[in-house]
Amino acid sequence: MDELLRTKLQKIRCIVTDVDGCLTRGDIYLGPDGQEMKVFCAKDAPRIASALAAGIKIVFFTGRKSSALEARAKELGVAWVLYKEDLREKGLSLYDWVARYHDLEPKEVLYFGDDWNDLPFMANAGVAACPTGAAEANWRLVTGRREKDQSGFWTVARGGEGAVSEVIECILRAKGLWQAAIDRHYKGLATIQN
Amino acid sequence: MDELLRTKLQKIRCIVTDVDGCLTRGDIYLGPDGQEMKVFCAKDAPRIASALAAGIKIVFFTGRKSSALEARAKELGVAWVLYKEDLREKGLSLYDWVARYHDLEPKEVLYFGDDWNDLPFMANAGVAACPTGAAEANWRLVTGRREKDQSGFWTVARGGEGAVSEVIECILRAKGLWQAAIDRHYKGLATIQN
Amino acid sequence: MDELLRTKLQKIRCIVTDVDGCLTRGDIYLGPDGQEMKVFCAKDAPRIASALAAGIKIVFFTGRKSSALEARAKELGVAWVLYKEDLREKGLSLYDWVARYHDLEPKEVLYFGDDWNDLPFMANAGVAACPTGAAEANWRLVTGRREKDQSGFWTVARGGEGAVSEVIECILRAKGLWQAAIDRHYKGLATIQN
Amino acid sequence: MDELLRTKLQKIRCIVTDVDGCLTRGDIYLGPDGQEMKVFCAKDAPRIASALAAGIKIVFFTGRKSSALEARAKELGVAWVLYKEDLREKGLSLYDWVARYHDLEPKEVLYFGDDWNDLPFMANAGVAACPTGAAEANWRLVTGRREKDQSGFWTVARGGEGAVSEVIECILRAKGLWQAAIDRHYKGLATIQN
Repeated sequence: MDELLRTKLQKIRCIVTDVDGCLTRGDIYLGPDGQEMKVFCAKDAPRIASALAAGIKIVFFTGRKSSALEARAKELGVAWVLYKEDLREKGLSLYDWVARYHDLEPKEVLYFGDDWNDLPFMANAGVAACPTGAAEANWRLVTGRREKDQSGFWTVARGGEGAVSEVIECILRAKGLWQAAIDRHYKGLATIQN
Repeated sequence: MDELLRTKLQKIRCIVTDVDGCLTRGDIYLGPDGQEMKVFCAKDAPRIASALAAGIKIVFFTGRKSSALEARAKELGVAWVLYKEDLREKGLSLYDWVARYHDLEPKEVLYFGDDWNDLPFMANAGVAACPTGAAEANWRLVTGRREKDQSGFWTVARGGEGAVSEVIECILRAKGLWQAAIDRHYKGLATIQN
Repeated sequence: MDELLRTKLQKIRCIVTDVDGCLTRGDIYLGPDGQEMKVFCAKDAPRIASALAAGIKIVFFTGRKSSALEARAKELGVAWVLYKEDLREKGLSLYDWVARYHDLEPKEVLYFGDDWNDLPFMANAGVAACPTGAAEANWRLVTGRREKDQSGFWTVARGGEGAVSEVIECILRAKGLWQAAIDRHYKGLATIQN
Repeated sequence: MDELLRTKLQKIRCIVTDVDGCLTRGDIYLGPDGQEMKVFCAKDAPRIASALAAGIKIVFFTGRKSSALEARAKELGVAWVLYKEDLREKGLSLYDWVARYHDLEPKEVLYFGDDWNDLPFMANAGVAACPTGAAEANWRLVTGRREKDQSGFWTVARGGEGAVSEVIECILRAKGLWQAAIDRHYKGLATIQN
């Protein structure tokens, strides 16, 4: 990892991630009555738990209301599902909201997004990342930032296939917390292992 | 892009797209009571919005009645879901219908289809396109038209994996509207970005 | 196509196909109450219609009761969904059943199967085929028959991704009915095309 | 197969397998009310039946309560679905439980897992295995054991795509029971074959 990116990642205290195409593969499942199903990635669960345990806040940010998403957030212990509509109603920008509710500056936020509607938020985040398979404009933004001051990167994984896990791994490695996150699983399971 | 194809795409004012295999991967999900679920592509949403904003009409055309499809059309702002059965009942050909309800000529229509039942409509459209993975006959029709007068092309993406997005990108690029479509997202989100 | 295989395929008047792994990808979707969803391939629909129109009988054969399967059979016009349990109750072998209800000999039957429970039926069919990704034992049976008298083959497609379509294409090509099957779609849609 | 691994596999009398990412692809499907659907692999069914017929116990082991999993276990004839929560309530380690309910030692258990929460159980099993696509830590544990005393291996298949089948094949081949398992299908189906 480049030293400048490492420094920027060390400052990250909050991950704001888009949902469709980042936390999922971007498939929109609609049932016969238009009700939605979502498909998440099992692999993201222990890594999100590790990020939370390391004091990193996680925000699922989307324009698409979804009770499946809220159910997933609940089982992951992710306290914040933020809808764009709610921001608009409050007349707040994303980074206003982050400042007001989490007392964080933009440079402390990593934004992870794969499509056009993520672009302005990626432009203003401390670090911007996108998954493989993101829209070309997102990839350009991320590579542009990487070339400028190493504040952008892309994951090898595609959305919904461990991409959010990879973002978390980058942050925890930069902070020197990665191996401890793995080791914690040996201890957490101590009572039911042999 | 070849100049002749560009000229033809500049005339397009309506996209008629088949559903299964174009807007979806062509997987038919049936539940225990035979009720159907459909899986759409998140990526298509902002690009369909851009096409509509550019005044291009979009028609979802299928022989398969589906309330999931109608729910998707509604959330995308696609006003037209056209069933073959309804055309038959009205005794109209597809291009009669396009003329009557949209006042458009066949040369103003791009037809996107992946299988046999799309062939006659592709033969008569201004531009015919198919996704990667289409039936061989569709691919032959499209390449035949491309060789004859550049009025056919195929997408790199497969159905349900951004194929309709790619069709829209081709049209908007030909019309010189592509970059503006991306830029619009910075402005549209201005109130909630930093 | 080898001449001997062509001769054997010309005699085929009935396709018996396994369901999971042949007509579907072999994914078993179970909902919260254990109810099953099945995922079929849109591409198979027009080709199955062509086979039926050419007088070829189609039998969906499985050990797994499924109302989703029956719904799919109904919309495809496939009149026969045969459960192994029903054969056992009647004390009939598969080929007894084919003889009694369809007046056909084993050499007039093509059996398509991907796993162990299909092996004995594949051993006794006029032609045996399996999809790419079938169990090694099925692939061995099919290649063994191909080497012996060209009565076996495998499809390039995987189950649920057009494999049954490919079987039908082989039979219709052998019978010289393939191009007509495609052409029929231009005529069948004549009233609603331009 | 290496001789030492063969010897270890010959002692295996119980397979404990993680569920998400091993028995499934690791996709978490959540419906509109948060209810879960699971997607299993058809191919695993006859191989699990063969393992059971060979006297090998199978335990589905997970931290995630799921009625879809219980339905799948029931149709496969797998008598044991073990939840981590239940172990904790009983104050038992996994290998205590295996000893108490199955009278087996750790060296008689193969543990199959793909992620961090499987690590301590994999460390203590007679043989540890993981699927392709497992977390790096699991892959390291398995390769470390393989290098030390050949007590670890990984499958070519990914979870939910025949990985559990491949584990069973390794065990039955080591015990010289593989070909008989296939042959049994010819006999078991004797009454309904020709």
